[in-house]
Amino acid sequence: MPIGFLVYNHDARSEAYDALKELFRPSHADYTWQMKYGIRDHRGGGRASAREHIARVVAGAIAKQYLSRQGVAVHAYTSRVGSVQLEPEYAPWELPCREDSLIGCPDREKESEMVELIRAVRRAEDSIGGVVTCVIRGVPPGVGEPVFDRFQARLAHYMMSINAAKGFEYGEGFRAATMKGSEHNDAFRPSSGGVTTLTNHSGGIQGGVTTGDEIYFRVAFKPIPTIGLPQQSVTTSGEEIELRASGRHDPCVIPRVLPVVEAMAAMLTLDMMLEGGYYPLKINEK
Amino acid sequence: MPIGFLVYNHDARSEAYDALKELFRPSHADYTWQMKYGIRDHRGGGRASAREHIARVVAGAIAKQYLSRQGVAVHAYTSRVGSVQLEPEYAPWELPCREDSLIGCPDREKESEMVELIRAVRRAEDSIGGVVTCVIRGVPPGVGEPVFDRFQARLAHYMMSINAAKGFEYGEGFRAATMKGSEHNDAFRPSSGGVTTLTNHSGGIQGGVTTGDEIYFRVAFKPIPTIGLPQQSVTTSGEEIELRASGRHDPCVIPRVLPVVEAMAAMLTLDMMLEGGYYPLKINEK
Amino acid sequence: MPIGFLVYNHDARSEAYDALKELFRPSHADYTWQMKYGIRDHRGGGRASAREHIARVVAGAIAKQYLSRQGVAVHAYTSRVGSVQLEPEYAPWELPCREDSLIGCPDREKESEMVELIRAVRRAEDSIGGVVTCVIRGVPPGVGEPVFDRFQARLAHYMMSINAAKGFEYGEGFRAATMKGSEHNDAFRPSSGGVTTLTNHSGGIQGGVTTGDEIYFRVAFKPIPTIGLPQQSVTTSGEEIELRASGRHDPCVIPRVLPVVEAMAAMLTLDMMLEGGYYPLKINEK
Amino acid sequence: MPIGFLVYNHDARSEAYDALKELFRPSHADYTWQMKYGIRDHRGGGRASAREHIARVVAGAIAKQYLSRQGVAVHAYTSRVGSVQLEPEYAPWELPCREDSLIGCPDREKESEMVELIRAVRRAEDSIGGVVTCVIRGVPPGVGEPVFDRFQARLAHYMMSINAAKGFEYGEGFRAATMKGSEHNDAFRPSSGGVTTLTNHSGGIQGGVTTGDEIYFRVAFKPIPTIGLPQQSVTTSGEEIELRASGRHDPCVIPRVLPVVEAMAAMLTLDMMLEGGYYPLKINEK
Repeated sequence: MPIGFLVYNHDARSEAYDALKELFRPSHADYTWQMKYGIRDHRGGGRASAREHIARVVAGAIAKQYLSRQGVAVHAYTSRVGSVQLEPEYAPWELPCREDSLIGCPDREKESEMVELIRAVRRAEDSIGGVVTCVIRGVPPGVGEPVFDRFQARLAHYMMSINAAKGFEYGEGFRAATMKGSEHNDAFRPSSGGVTTLTNHSGGIQGGVTTGDEIYFRVAFKPIPTIGLPQQSVTTSGEEIELRASGRHDPCVIPRVLPVVEAMAAMLTLDMMLEGGYYPLKINEK
Repeated sequence: MPIGFLVYNHDARSEAYDALKELFRPSHADYTWQMKYGIRDHRGGGRASAREHIARVVAGAIAKQYLSRQGVAVHAYTSRVGSVQLEPEYAPWELPCREDSLIGCPDREKESEMVELIRAVRRAEDSIGGVVTCVIRGVPPGVGEPVFDRFQARLAHYMMSINAAKGFEYGEGFRAATMKGSEHNDAFRPSSGGVTTLTNHSGGIQGGVTTGDEIYFRVAFKPIPTIGLPQQSVTTSGEEIELRASGRHDPCVIPRVLPVVEAMAAMLTLDMMLEGGYYPLKINEK
Repeated sequence: MPIGFLVYNHDARSEAYDALKELFRPSHADYTWQMKYGIRDHRGGGRASAREHIARVVAGAIAKQYLSRQGVAVHAYTSRVGSVQLEPEYAPWELPCREDSLIGCPDREKESEMVELIRAVRRAEDSIGGVVTCVIRGVPPGVGEPVFDRFQARLAHYMMSINAAKGFEYGEGFRAATMKGSEHNDAFRPSSGGVTTLTNHSGGIQGGVTTGDEIYFRVAFKPIPTIGLPQQSVTTSGEEIELRASGRHDPCVIPRVLPVVEAMAAMLTLDMMLEGGYYPLKINEK
Repeated sequence: MPIGFLVYNHDARSEAYDALKELFRPSHADYTWQMKYGIRDHRGGGRASAREHIARVVAGAIAKQYLSRQGVAVHAYTSRVGSVQLEPEYAPWELPCREDSLIGCPDREKESEMVELIRAVRRAEDSIGGVVTCVIRGVPPGVGEPVFDRFQARLAHYMMSINAAKGFEYGEGFRAATMKGSEHNDAFRPSSGGVTTLTNHSGGIQGGVTTGDEIYFRVAFKPIPTIGLPQQSVTTSGEEIELRASGRHDPCVIPRVLPVVEAMAAMLTLDMMLEGGYYPLKINEK
């Protein structure tokens, strides 16, 4: 049966957005949705608001319960805020790390730098971008489809549907473009009960299908476009205007976007396992 | 009516792959497809071969004809081969540049360096990765869907379904993660008949919907895994083996992947225009 | 934006179904859903209840508003209850007839007979089947797809998804099986601005695509399986039991199913117009 | 991997259709497809020809192989030609009966009458309709979806997508509209290992989900519209014309449509078993 739920927003203050009714905020969906639909809801950003992601997080939480029975776990962590980069970025970090961390970075020192940067940006009434790394552990070999619905293709779709996402890469990602085959290839070795690889540059997927290794990927997020600093903009009637955002807005999608990345990754993994008929998940199975 | 076509491969030499029947090539689909299907076609890589992309290129050519009537053009070019990076990478290059270029790079000097690198890699019986940049010009504002089927999400799906793709980014992409909102936001200015922006850091999409500006994005490709250098591998019966590829194989997906990127981008653009009901494309319309 | 709504059922009496928790009601979904899901909600029939159709009726009401702008109207009426058959069944009846009718039959005399039959059946604590005829007026020529998604195929799908539906036919339907081509064919005649047909045996569709004539079809409904008369059944632990339904149940799906048939027909018509790109329905168009 | 095949039609005589290029044949797709697409292929009816069904029959043959491993069999037979009706129509007939029968009717006497009627109709240069009954045996309980994709809804979709189909019913079908609940309900009885029913008026499906009993249904087909008798029609330039078909055409879809009905039923059954995750059909499973 379908699972339905309602999340009431008791803290909405629609009137705080009155000033935005007649103008287009830079790098928001205001202008494009107006062009597409001829109408838009300026209050709280309407449906373009990241509030929409609450539904994804709820659904992802259900997917995670299912996956955990299959031994699959999904962990997202903060690997970059602005210029502060976690090093090494993909490593056997102790995960999950979100519980006892301010912004979900597995390295305490780097986390401090990141938090400091976010605070400085907030004081400057500006915003800053970041990168989330996510690891999916325990997916068996053979999940994913061979041509259009490769695991990584669908995963990219799911990730790039998150607000503010600007880039997706898995395994070595863009770094693979600078590598030679002799560096990037994952050599096979015999192992008990099958084969294994000496490295996992590939990120746990070959030919669109999972290898059984850890799947890891990164999603880049732009700086949140709502800033207190003055910006040039235009009203809906075409006049120049200087815009200074007031009210509630975060200086960085980090750490709020971490559960969204996890939720989308969990749903993708479950979807592909079910669609591929790989795991006949049974109702009432313990 | 559906459009059907057959492309005969008169140059197949299946026997050249006999040696691969009983082993798993590193970083190929051999192992994962064997695990998924229990059977695989080792001849020419079977369906995992990039030969599959010929169908995409044919379909893309038809999509391009349609798009050209709507004033939409799609141009892909080579922006990186290994360590050689086109600078500036996204700029008003004269496009298309593939006709009078060896590898589809709009800068002649950089192109020479790239070609030299590819030749050196080939001599070393190794391979090398690369990045393709693609520009979609002339898409009207309002194309794309608001939540899951954002233009960039579907575009990422299409791109990451191409063989050897490891990463996707649009607009500033991963660089956006290092930027501040005050740097990244595209300020609006009035223009004749509407509004325009001073910059296009966003890559022509806001809130999943096109702005009317140029859409630009990058796709990272890994080095082709088939190399002549010796590699460790395992036979299907679990024994160690040293593998040295012989026969026909390219040292780099560049420039062969350029028409594939263009084809997939053209199909995505046409798909989203049709699905969104944006452009009622009429049969027999001149 | 999606349209959401909640319909609260303030008149639910779940405890009235307590007696049904441990048994399978004949010709209900109790047994099959138990076999499929391993769990079922016995209260009010759970999701198998026709209460589910309220959502369809709401959505259909929205579809009808859209269609009315395009000059399309959907009218369902009762053409049979048990042995009482409207004659002629498909004729230029004045429609809609539901407003000033007890059970939505356009012939007052037949309606009286039908109502009397339903009352007699109710007194006998039994139930009775019926047939609904539906007419879709104003659909332009050219709506529908050529092969698998013929207008009539999708229409049959939508209709047969309604609770208790047992049969679907359009145009002459099963009677066409007894006819000769010379009787059934609709001869063309010239008309101002195009062509017309002398008859409409075909029911407004040829080759899966609408002709511009009235589309008419019939849906047969079984007698409601919940009856007060004693029935043999089996408990969930496999013991024989005699079942006598008490509580609220209708003796006939007529007339309650009429708005459901109309709603599904309206949604199908709108879906196929949009999918086929036939009518570029514009936002804010008057 | 996808399964591809080509069926060459070595017996095409396109010139036989030259006379039809400039006119609309009554009760064919000529007019509606012209209105939809602005272009049509008059040769052999183009894609509207029942020749299209060869692909369905091939695919259905593959589905049948799969189903037979699961103990599922699909048998269609002729139950009516014009006024000649098989009695009883649904009974434990020995199936399949197509091998040693002219038109696939399980009763030899009725078959003779049907064949005689078809021959008489052919001599009169007319055509005649018919009904096909189909039985699906061996489907386990629990196949089908609860709301929109009920087994019977999808089955109706598949059947009504066949050329010339005018009606679909399952179980008692339209006769159920004349029955009382006390007559139509299938009483449950205990049986070894579960429950069974005394009757199968329902046709093997309850609440959209299979019961484990035989699924049976009927499809009504109209008389083939191509007849030698003179018919009134209109040319594409709007002038009246008298049309007399010559060339090759059958007087009845019986018996040619029997394998099409079986193929579509087999594909539907396999589709719903796979989609529902019911039977994890394994590759290479014996």
